[in-house]
Amino acid sequence: MSSSQVCTVDYIDHVGIAVKDIDAALKMFHEVFGAPMAEVKQLDDQGIRGALVQVGQTRLELMEPTSSDTTIGRFIERRGEGLHHLAFYVNDLPGKIRIVEEAGLQLIDHEPREGLSGDIAFIHPRSVFGILTELVERPNE
Amino acid sequence: MSSSQVCTVDYIDHVGIAVKDIDAALKMFHEVFGAPMAEVKQLDDQGIRGALVQVGQTRLELMEPTSSDTTIGRFIERRGEGLHHLAFYVNDLPGKIRIVEEAGLQLIDHEPREGLSGDIAFIHPRSVFGILTELVERPNE
Repeated sequence: MSSSQVCTVDYIDHVGIAVKDIDAALKMFHEVFGAPMAEVKQLDDQGIRGALVQVGQTRLELMEPTSSDTTIGRFIERRGEGLHHLAFYVNDLPGKIRIVEEAGLQLIDHEPREGLSGDIAFIHPRSVFGILTELVERPNE
Repeated sequence: MSSSQVCTVDYIDHVGIAVKDIDAALKMFHEVFGAPMAEVKQLDDQGIRGALVQVGQTRLELMEPTSSDTTIGRFIERRGEGLHHLAFYVNDLPGKIRIVEEAGLQLIDHEPREGLSGDIAFIHPRSVFGILTELVERPNE
């Protein structure tokens, strides 16, 4: 694999947002900003109640922690509610993981795993200017 | 004006990102993630060197502070580099400002002002679940 290969990003899949009360957040995005309502799913392995709100081509991934002793719970305790991560849609996620690894970026996930948005892998924020960066693919889309 | 009016968001105009070195950030987004290169503009009134990187329908607004004594300089000192704000594209920005004000949200800008992305107005993060939220319009678009 040549080092000139690129982890081409098709579009911003979603912007991840940590909130204390997902029902209140969904209500505001719907009533004030006209976004569609979205189904809330409980993901016990990630310690969140999550929902994806479509806005144009991309989505807001709202995440409410199921307890304070979760990744998102600790994030809110440390930094407050708000912007949490940025997700790029890619094709061939396993191949793209190898490309960013070869480019010297530090991965959190070396293999795709299942997330709210599809198959996902996180890149460490210290490799992307402080941005917790997610790569997403939905292979059957 | 009825309280049932909505500040309809057309799409996510951009995601604002605070970086220490905009040239390094542009290079990585281009070389690793395949995004187009973008022109850097110095905006002295905002204390930034800024650039807009197109990714699908939306953009990354990269902002490097011109000194530590600027809004973005202080943000980086306090919280580090990374996600800074979220911008929604709207039509009729002056009307949308009135709608969010009537909905009880706290505005930072009560009238549109000129930004890197067009005419803009910021809503206070305490009104939008910790998200510094920007409304954007390019009237001649």
